[in-house]
Amino acid sequence: MQKLQETAEKIRTMEIRGAGRIAKAAAEAIRDYAAGLDVASIEEFSTRIQEASSFLISTRPTAVSLPNAVKLASKYSSGNVEEARKEIIENANCFIERADKALGIIGKIGSRRIQDGDVIMTHCNSNAALSIITTAFEDGKDILVIATESRPRRQGLLTVRHLNNFGVPTTLIVDSAVRYYMKEVDKVIVGADAIASNGALVNKIGTSQLALAANEARKSFMVAAETFKFSPNTILGNPIEIEERSSDEVIDPVILADLSQVQVKNPVFDFTPAKYIDMIVTDIGIISPGMAYAIIKEHLGW
Amino acid sequence: MQKLQETAEKIRTMEIRGAGRIAKAAAEAIRDYAAGLDVASIEEFSTRIQEASSFLISTRPTAVSLPNAVKLASKYSSGNVEEARKEIIENANCFIERADKALGIIGKIGSRRIQDGDVIMTHCNSNAALSIITTAFEDGKDILVIATESRPRRQGLLTVRHLNNFGVPTTLIVDSAVRYYMKEVDKVIVGADAIASNGALVNKIGTSQLALAANEARKSFMVAAETFKFSPNTILGNPIEIEERSSDEVIDPVILADLSQVQVKNPVFDFTPAKYIDMIVTDIGIISPGMAYAIIKEHLGW
Amino acid sequence: MQKLQETAEKIRTMEIRGAGRIAKAAAEAIRDYAAGLDVASIEEFSTRIQEASSFLISTRPTAVSLPNAVKLASKYSSGNVEEARKEIIENANCFIERADKALGIIGKIGSRRIQDGDVIMTHCNSNAALSIITTAFEDGKDILVIATESRPRRQGLLTVRHLNNFGVPTTLIVDSAVRYYMKEVDKVIVGADAIASNGALVNKIGTSQLALAANEARKSFMVAAETFKFSPNTILGNPIEIEERSSDEVIDPVILADLSQVQVKNPVFDFTPAKYIDMIVTDIGIISPGMAYAIIKEHLGW
Amino acid sequence: MQKLQETAEKIRTMEIRGAGRIAKAAAEAIRDYAAGLDVASIEEFSTRIQEASSFLISTRPTAVSLPNAVKLASKYSSGNVEEARKEIIENANCFIERADKALGIIGKIGSRRIQDGDVIMTHCNSNAALSIITTAFEDGKDILVIATESRPRRQGLLTVRHLNNFGVPTTLIVDSAVRYYMKEVDKVIVGADAIASNGALVNKIGTSQLALAANEARKSFMVAAETFKFSPNTILGNPIEIEERSSDEVIDPVILADLSQVQVKNPVFDFTPAKYIDMIVTDIGIISPGMAYAIIKEHLGW
Amino acid sequence: MQKLQETAEKIRTMEIRGAGRIAKAAAEAIRDYAAGLDVASIEEFSTRIQEASSFLISTRPTAVSLPNAVKLASKYSSGNVEEARKEIIENANCFIERADKALGIIGKIGSRRIQDGDVIMTHCNSNAALSIITTAFEDGKDILVIATESRPRRQGLLTVRHLNNFGVPTTLIVDSAVRYYMKEVDKVIVGADAIASNGALVNKIGTSQLALAANEARKSFMVAAETFKFSPNTILGNPIEIEERSSDEVIDPVILADLSQVQVKNPVFDFTPAKYIDMIVTDIGIISPGMAYAIIKEHLGW
Amino acid sequence: MQKLQETAEKIRTMEIRGAGRIAKAAAEAIRDYAAGLDVASIEEFSTRIQEASSFLISTRPTAVSLPNAVKLASKYSSGNVEEARKEIIENANCFIERADKALGIIGKIGSRRIQDGDVIMTHCNSNAALSIITTAFEDGKDILVIATESRPRRQGLLTVRHLNNFGVPTTLIVDSAVRYYMKEVDKVIVGADAIASNGALVNKIGTSQLALAANEARKSFMVAAETFKFSPNTILGNPIEIEERSSDEVIDPVILADLSQVQVKNPVFDFTPAKYIDMIVTDIGIISPGMAYAIIKEHLGW
Repeated sequence: MQKLQETAEKIRTMEIRGAGRIAKAAAEAIRDYAAGLDVASIEEFSTRIQEASSFLISTRPTAVSLPNAVKLASKYSSGNVEEARKEIIENANCFIERADKALGIIGKIGSRRIQDGDVIMTHCNSNAALSIITTAFEDGKDILVIATESRPRRQGLLTVRHLNNFGVPTTLIVDSAVRYYMKEVDKVIVGADAIASNGALVNKIGTSQLALAANEARKSFMVAAETFKFSPNTILGNPIEIEERSSDEVIDPVILADLSQVQVKNPVFDFTPAKYIDMIVTDIGIISPGMAYAIIKEHLGW
Repeated sequence: MQKLQETAEKIRTMEIRGAGRIAKAAAEAIRDYAAGLDVASIEEFSTRIQEASSFLISTRPTAVSLPNAVKLASKYSSGNVEEARKEIIENANCFIERADKALGIIGKIGSRRIQDGDVIMTHCNSNAALSIITTAFEDGKDILVIATESRPRRQGLLTVRHLNNFGVPTTLIVDSAVRYYMKEVDKVIVGADAIASNGALVNKIGTSQLALAANEARKSFMVAAETFKFSPNTILGNPIEIEERSSDEVIDPVILADLSQVQVKNPVFDFTPAKYIDMIVTDIGIISPGMAYAIIKEHLGW
Repeated sequence: MQKLQETAEKIRTMEIRGAGRIAKAAAEAIRDYAAGLDVASIEEFSTRIQEASSFLISTRPTAVSLPNAVKLASKYSSGNVEEARKEIIENANCFIERADKALGIIGKIGSRRIQDGDVIMTHCNSNAALSIITTAFEDGKDILVIATESRPRRQGLLTVRHLNNFGVPTTLIVDSAVRYYMKEVDKVIVGADAIASNGALVNKIGTSQLALAANEARKSFMVAAETFKFSPNTILGNPIEIEERSSDEVIDPVILADLSQVQVKNPVFDFTPAKYIDMIVTDIGIISPGMAYAIIKEHLGW
Repeated sequence: MQKLQETAEKIRTMEIRGAGRIAKAAAEAIRDYAAGLDVASIEEFSTRIQEASSFLISTRPTAVSLPNAVKLASKYSSGNVEEARKEIIENANCFIERADKALGIIGKIGSRRIQDGDVIMTHCNSNAALSIITTAFEDGKDILVIATESRPRRQGLLTVRHLNNFGVPTTLIVDSAVRYYMKEVDKVIVGADAIASNGALVNKIGTSQLALAANEARKSFMVAAETFKFSPNTILGNPIEIEERSSDEVIDPVILADLSQVQVKNPVFDFTPAKYIDMIVTDIGIISPGMAYAIIKEHLGW
Repeated sequence: MQKLQETAEKIRTMEIRGAGRIAKAAAEAIRDYAAGLDVASIEEFSTRIQEASSFLISTRPTAVSLPNAVKLASKYSSGNVEEARKEIIENANCFIERADKALGIIGKIGSRRIQDGDVIMTHCNSNAALSIITTAFEDGKDILVIATESRPRRQGLLTVRHLNNFGVPTTLIVDSAVRYYMKEVDKVIVGADAIASNGALVNKIGTSQLALAANEARKSFMVAAETFKFSPNTILGNPIEIEERSSDEVIDPVILADLSQVQVKNPVFDFTPAKYIDMIVTDIGIISPGMAYAIIKEHLGW
Repeated sequence: MQKLQETAEKIRTMEIRGAGRIAKAAAEAIRDYAAGLDVASIEEFSTRIQEASSFLISTRPTAVSLPNAVKLASKYSSGNVEEARKEIIENANCFIERADKALGIIGKIGSRRIQDGDVIMTHCNSNAALSIITTAFEDGKDILVIATESRPRRQGLLTVRHLNNFGVPTTLIVDSAVRYYMKEVDKVIVGADAIASNGALVNKIGTSQLALAANEARKSFMVAAETFKFSPNTILGNPIEIEERSSDEVIDPVILADLSQVQVKNPVFDFTPAKYIDMIVTDIGIISPGMAYAIIKEHLGW
């Protein structure tokens, strides 16, 4: 329990962050907890596993990959404690392995859609989107990337540095120039923070503007997302909450202090409706956003 | 001629900048040049005025207000030197007075379209757009402004400061959040760097994204523009050129130097098609963008 | 002055109502007032005509045809009282004659766009729209009309009765069925209460839904409007105000009295943006809505 | 058989009406029929159950919930009569219980999407849509509802009365005012008469106009529908027929009798294409309309 | 009169064809007729000129350039026969000269909008559109043209041959491939058979599909049209009639004879709505389609 | 093995062509190969069946029905050679029977959506689309078909001949006239060469133009496709390649030889995005394009 509590604490304090890392840490925590659980009966085993699961999930109620990982890792069917334990260890390991490979698979599948000469626009700094781009480049495709700055935290600088390390020719633009350069783009590829059961995408603020401009100009809009990014809570109507970050990221607080009539809004994510998404590249293949409910039901076990 | 050359030099070196200031300086220069012109015949007068006009216009071939000012200021019909001189002085003064009053008139006309409770989004830092907003506020209308940061030069900070001075409640957002906040907006009001003869708008990079998002959400998109912003050159097919500024505005050059595969694109303006513009508020009233050609022909004398 | 005051009173109390009738009564009032004006000088004449004009216009500040009629009727250029008087009488008579003929001309011009076999949808009860429809029918064209009920006042019943008198086959539908029947429609023809300087249409509530559904289904949307329906005030930014009528038109007040949480909204008009209007049939020909400003400037003398 | 025939008769004569009530009555009829069935063999059992099923379904061939209820209630797998009987009784009870709870579940799930301050437009009088609205209100959310009159039968009056009883602040408008008020709306919530296998919605005439106007203004369009509203017949291409009701609902027959050229069309439903639907709130969660085929296959057992 | 009759006959029999050639021939005919007219009074002169004008126009009632040419050529104001004659000769010569230069001017103006590297799609075989393309190419711009085959008469072959003669790299595609290649296109440039007073374009069948596909993909759609292509008749509501040509152009008549249930439709033109047109390049500059009415009124003298 | 190699050769050389014929030939080849396979162990059986499968699929890597047929025909679960053999024979026969009946089922299902009086547009020459049309006609529905010529190979002539044989009244038009006649159309019905996992359609060049024009005019766009047309490879990101055919189909090579600057592009297919498709009629019922992934997973066994 102590290790599980430590993991929970690290998730809560964001020492462990990022959908993939959270998911794996949670699966490991459940696995190790089950492995060491000393109980008298399957009933007690069940109660303790459920408590541990709920506890882990409660550390960041809005993280999408967390409940998916816990749910898949803590699944067992046997009525015998030792067998149930074994099942959990296997399921957790299986989930961890799948999560580990997901980026590679998405890169491979998505890169097949990239054609020689493509100009690709991306936003913020998504591992899944970058996996597609760098895989295509390493396959010898001659591509050009346009990366947005992604104010306020300017994760676009991480993206151009990452692409530069791979040798991919990249152009950096400010976020306001998205529509101006959309004419030169062939495909837009972005990551996902979460995908709702009706196919809507939650991703870094500004994503929906890329989607809107891509749709206006008949450009492909591709989302790269591991299946554990699909949100089971949205089936039950729970909205995905949009975090607001400090105004300091946008304006110097000293300046702001002088402006009594001025406030700053700094939401981290926005919503992109399913109708602007041409395809979602997942670790189980390319799907239409309309399939989100089925993915959650069938692949996430809800 | 010396004073005219000085003015020309200041326009060329951007000591005099901004469409309104350039226009007035040019009209004054023509007026004063005509006032002091010592010529033997109306033919010589004509030649010299034409030379001076062409010279002034050539200092910044892409400025839109410059040829409009020179054209309107240098107009005369008389065949008598003294009368022609008087005509020019009168026309120039008339143009200057009209230009001086234009912002006030636009503020008055446009503010009548603002309703109590309106949430207004604006972009960059336009005097004409701000004139509408502050006039409405001073008329006692209870409004809220959402101002974009307007990277890379962040003129949005000037806008929020200006509105703060007037006491207008204002929210500052990053450029990527335009579509996210568009749902709460009633009207978008932006300025103009130029308006082409087919009604297309040239304005600060990012303007077309506001227009696109406003159109998607059925929000009013209003342009505030003095008549001297309408571009006579576009009638003849001359495209309005989009200036590119230094990459230093976007990324620290030291960092960029290390990224051999990365380049930066930093265009200053973008194009907004006429179909996304609900109305243009000018100093001669509210028009449809489809009227641009007629405005240039009738009010700018081409 | 007494007769002018009587006319003003009748306009104020809506004894005289309808854009055309108001316009003609106002022009007559100005004409007769000018005819009987006993003044010592052209200055006095000018002052009195201006007072009379302002007084008339002030009786219904939101009526669009009223200022147009007064403006056109009260125009004169002479510095001589008798000649100015004559000019006003002529201008007023000319305006009245033009207004009288406007419906006939619109009917003739618009009907040329109707083709044998056309199914035409109309809304509410517009004389100008009906003039086009009945002219086409009397020209021997085999047409079918779909008329909306136009709740709450159900002017659609007047429309079907009028068309029935002409022998035009007509189908009556409820307002909710507009989109359902739009598939069978070839053209939508509606009237206008006012047209703004940017080409937007103000007409009976529900008009914009016909326009939206017509646009969705690629059907022609035609507005029939006398030139005196173009609003000069909108050039100066004055919004066209939307009148609210009594809730009694929508729900029995006895029932409503029992429903403490329920209120009723009953606006008379709505706005249709220019982009949904294919053409405006006026007494000076077929125009694009983008021409509205030019019509106001050139044909209404502002 | 007698009781089954009585139920069938009541469905045929519309004594039992409404998708939910029909569904439950049919499931009960099958259950009771199976419970009392005195047969010699499983073959005879099978034949009789099938006859009864077909007979029930044939009473209202266009009702969507009827075949779904019969199909789910009459399912069994055993080859033994008593066990098959028990299965049917259980399946029928299970269906009835699920149907009973469906409105509550939909209310709970859907209400989570309602935010404090939301303005919600609804059309006609849908129990499922109202369940979402009143649940949100009872959860303490500060909402405002705009209800359409829903001519010709004016079920909007039922809606405002129902909401008034719950204390929900409500505004009543005529159907023509839908687009006018859409600007103030945050979400549109409507019920469903049926959902086709390609995701298209069949609902009260006028629904598609709300959807179109919501789509034009980027407002959420939410459908509330029990799973038994999904139409299995549409998989096989059978179109959902649109009932026409009496013209007396639209116009006084005495008046109509005098209008020889006038006819009245009074369809009860219209179609809303899947592309205008953001989500469907069902008793098994929120889905995209693109999932309709899967729902019919997996949850309705076809 | 004989020469005028000969010209009329040639226009009627299509010996003289093409909007430009018809216009010039008609202006010459009026000019020469006026030059040789032997009359006793200005009244007779007026009558004869009007008769001649009507006669000429009646030879091809649907040709758009014909009435424009006749109207502009036959204009005079003097009450003196000799002066009136002189006026007509001058006006006719002026019209002819303007028409002669129109293609060159359009080429010059339009080519300024072409940028280095542009891919231009064109349809059928328009002199005005080709003038823009070849002027841009001769100015040293590196362009690529995609030309449609333009079934049934395959005028695309004339286009590729013409462009080949100028050395312009050109790709020929079938008409069905328009949307497929639109992704690679920067600008679409087409000619005009006529432009209606509301800004709608009449041009070779298939033009509206290029416009629709360009609009879907946010590509510029440019029309090249001499001012005499604007149709004055459309102001009065006269629709532009769409000629149908022989089925032999589409299918071998021997084959068709065997197919009793098959008919062929072969319309020559289609309509492109103003909303899909970004600009019209004319001999008086670049305009919005919304200006059509003003062009007809001001430049064609109606 | 010899017969399998012969079949493979015929598929490679296109002696066997058409999605349905290829699918059946491949299933037969696998079946007969399994029937005659003389092996010592289930391991050897497995190896040989896999080799044969891969070999067959490799003959036309881009054919969509080929891998579907091979996959479904070669499925077995037993560990016993004889039983595995039997399973394959049964699965192959089952697939062949299903494929044989597919057109009939699609015809029956789809024809139920056709209403009396419908005007149906079709493109190229699709057996599945024609099955719907002729079934509806034989059911006594009064329909009219508009068939496109479908340059360059003019398969529209096959279509009109086929429909003529059935007595269906048909109108032949050139491909450029699609948008012109779309106003008169009620439904568009086309076939499919392949359907991607995200719901996009691959079909004869020009199909996407029909879809775009149908969408613009709110007309139903229906795809008729056997389930074996759904492409399993697209799940893995493999793009469907668009074949280019000889330029001789478009232009006489002798003429082309003289045109050094002219090239011809002759792609066979284009892509239609899912958002333009209202429904897909398959042999397992009517679905939304968003279901494509589920169809491939569940009905094609991937």
